[in-house]
Amino acid sequence: MNDLTIVLDGKSGVPLYEQIYYHIKNEITEGGLPFGKRLPSTRKLAKFLQVSRTTVDLAYEQLVSEGYVEARPCKGYYVCELEGICSLRPESPRARRKPKQQDAGCLYDFSPRGVDLNSFPLGAWRKISKEILMEDNTRFFQLGDPAGEWELRCTIADYLHQARGVSAEPEQIIVGAGNDFLHMLLRVLLGNRRVLAMESPTYRKAYELFESLSCTVKIAGMDESGMRIDSLEETGADLAYVMPSHQYPLGIVMPVKRRMQLLEWAARKEGRYIIEDDYDSEFRYRGKPIPALAGYDRQGKVIYIGTFSKSIAPAIRVSYMVLPEGLMEKYNERGRRISSTVSRVDQLLIARFLNEGYYERHLNKMRAVYKSRHDTLLEAMKPFRKILTVSGENAGVHLLLNFHNGMTEQEAADRAWTKGVKVYGLSRYYVGGVSQERQTVILGYANVTEDAIKEAAGRLAQAWL
Amino acid sequence: MNDLTIVLDGKSGVPLYEQIYYHIKNEITEGGLPFGKRLPSTRKLAKFLQVSRTTVDLAYEQLVSEGYVEARPCKGYYVCELEGICSLRPESPRARRKPKQQDAGCLYDFSPRGVDLNSFPLGAWRKISKEILMEDNTRFFQLGDPAGEWELRCTIADYLHQARGVSAEPEQIIVGAGNDFLHMLLRVLLGNRRVLAMESPTYRKAYELFESLSCTVKIAGMDESGMRIDSLEETGADLAYVMPSHQYPLGIVMPVKRRMQLLEWAARKEGRYIIEDDYDSEFRYRGKPIPALAGYDRQGKVIYIGTFSKSIAPAIRVSYMVLPEGLMEKYNERGRRISSTVSRVDQLLIARFLNEGYYERHLNKMRAVYKSRHDTLLEAMKPFRKILTVSGENAGVHLLLNFHNGMTEQEAADRAWTKGVKVYGLSRYYVGGVSQERQTVILGYANVTEDAIKEAAGRLAQAWL
Repeated sequence: MNDLTIVLDGKSGVPLYEQIYYHIKNEITEGGLPFGKRLPSTRKLAKFLQVSRTTVDLAYEQLVSEGYVEARPCKGYYVCELEGICSLRPESPRARRKPKQQDAGCLYDFSPRGVDLNSFPLGAWRKISKEILMEDNTRFFQLGDPAGEWELRCTIADYLHQARGVSAEPEQIIVGAGNDFLHMLLRVLLGNRRVLAMESPTYRKAYELFESLSCTVKIAGMDESGMRIDSLEETGADLAYVMPSHQYPLGIVMPVKRRMQLLEWAARKEGRYIIEDDYDSEFRYRGKPIPALAGYDRQGKVIYIGTFSKSIAPAIRVSYMVLPEGLMEKYNERGRRISSTVSRVDQLLIARFLNEGYYERHLNKMRAVYKSRHDTLLEAMKPFRKILTVSGENAGVHLLLNFHNGMTEQEAADRAWTKGVKVYGLSRYYVGGVSQERQTVILGYANVTEDAIKEAAGRLAQAWL
Repeated sequence: MNDLTIVLDGKSGVPLYEQIYYHIKNEITEGGLPFGKRLPSTRKLAKFLQVSRTTVDLAYEQLVSEGYVEARPCKGYYVCELEGICSLRPESPRARRKPKQQDAGCLYDFSPRGVDLNSFPLGAWRKISKEILMEDNTRFFQLGDPAGEWELRCTIADYLHQARGVSAEPEQIIVGAGNDFLHMLLRVLLGNRRVLAMESPTYRKAYELFESLSCTVKIAGMDESGMRIDSLEETGADLAYVMPSHQYPLGIVMPVKRRMQLLEWAARKEGRYIIEDDYDSEFRYRGKPIPALAGYDRQGKVIYIGTFSKSIAPAIRVSYMVLPEGLMEKYNERGRRISSTVSRVDQLLIARFLNEGYYERHLNKMRAVYKSRHDTLLEAMKPFRKILTVSGENAGVHLLLNFHNGMTEQEAADRAWTKGVKVYGLSRYYVGGVSQERQTVILGYANVTEDAIKEAAGRLAQAWL
């Protein structure tokens, strides 16, 4: 009993049972109460401390449940054997400094990942968000369908039919928080021992992600129509990852003939699939959008992936995937276990944003904004024609400058940087050790206004000409 | 020219260039215009159709960019060779029927995955959501830090320190859309050739997910303190997945001694880690919450995973992971490529929900609600003491009924079902072919009111006694 002279402080705000618990716990961890030592009975300790027996019971129970003390039936409470230190760290939380942002000093950033957010339809977003939360429907907070909300999947099916020429049932559509997540999900569905063919240069993140998930990734050669079929055959791959509407980063639009050949390649062997990443097909400045490869698919060979990151906003985190019939069984078997990664409120928000016509209006607005920047940038590049050619300019929100005066991408980027302009070398998009062209830079113009483009071009002239 | 008698309809609403484009495309795909055929020059066709040359230019450009037609410099436009059919499917979207929900006819569902949503703090949620969107800050829609918003990570660090005894820097905290996603991310960080040890029964989804991502998953034996260290050693695993606060589904609280032994196991070899899934530690009905295993970790051996799914709402889709220092390099190398799976608005919402004290109040409310259901269920099970014992009742929102009268889980579930009560057999949680006890059912009470528990108990008495 003498070991347990606990000084209780009735005014400290800490419940009495916790004070007892902490005292005994400290005694145990600091060796004051050795292994095997019997604690006083709850009755005795309660009397000694002049507290109710329930208070001591609570303290002992806590000690038992954390394993410091053992209750032996009809015998009492005994100190357990502990090894190592087990008290919590006493430090108080430190003042934290947010890690610094990079890129200070850059006036004109032609990042290919930029998106113009001044045009973000915040009003509509706010209105719909408020409406959904006002509906007082706790259903929105119950776990939803792992594949996504039915309303949203129907809406996406209609959109794909009208805008991308893709006929898909809502059952085939899986909603996920970004393309990276969908790639991970695909890896789960497609299983081990898969060989995936990609182009080089390509969307590097996808390459590295598939590699780090034990996919074998091979590089198939390219020509001016995109991935070469003969080279694809040689890789021995059973999966081909392509971006037929606007190859990233080269900007190649895959012609119908190559699309047909790719579909034929997939049809020649069972288990072959094409992953179509249709990341920025919404933005095409002349004529109507080119139908997706999945729109030509009659044999269920194309896994189509689309996103709202480019067309609405990157932080929205909503992408979607159309699975061919042949993969639905795998999805139901393996994929449905993985809970949806998008909140139901966000899913309903996107569905209504599309259904109420906001998306169409937003897209038309953005097409106009981006087309005007695209045209301004093309015009601004005219004085550079002696030293470079422009490519990849038919769609999307970036284009390439290919230097033919011997300037390397590093030199071009460094010189531009000294004038406050950030452009990006193409070589970072090369993967798999494929030999690299090093005389091309990439300019994303989505987040650079026309005035800024003109000013930046003036600075680039000083840097490059 | 005669092949191209295009009937243009100025009143159809379809732009003229599109009508020309569609006509020629159809001619090509239906064989009316064979491979190699030269199209009329844009000048001639414009004159013939009495439209502007720009209109024909646009139509031809679209045909070229889709690969139906080829522009040969100084020669004109020629039909490309196409193989296969390439017109879009003409079907109009069908009326769709939403797939039916299951479980009709069930009056009392003791699903272990249930959550009480009548207590969801919709008012506070709505208020904060509105505030964030009113701030007119388009930053929220720009792509954020892949690891999560700094504000939220600081908030979680403070919460973990106070509530779970875990000291983590915000830099170590990674936010993700649900535990499934975090498991996938962990798989990326930890790399190939890993052997993971799990218990059986366990959280089955995690087992299957790791298996489908080419992890070798071994089963370590259990005793009444949780995972056995000798058995863990025998598996040869370098990763151990445990739920020390409340093992799922058995409800075992791992005592301090076993926790220390587990930490020692991890410390014995480099590269060993413990994955601590702390899924429902917020709910403990007597005494204060037991500190997390990560709170005892001095050597950077515990990967801690927590979630707001149980404590706020399942559809919120926000979980978090604390990476030990030793894995930060891997995260920066491989993990940062994967964009955050939670929208920034949702992240800020959760941060403010915690910072403004709503979370604490909500947790206290839910603890009271769940404790009352827990106590009611324990009381209601007293008449069954002849045929079963109750276990796993110290924490969480489910408990187990172990029949000792020879009744199997199947019989128990079937008989309960005939009375409109749904209980779940434990055997579904066994993995890896480990021999199964088949006389235990699991009852989740989070989403069953006290009145419903009493009524259900009456029905179970009819079914089982």
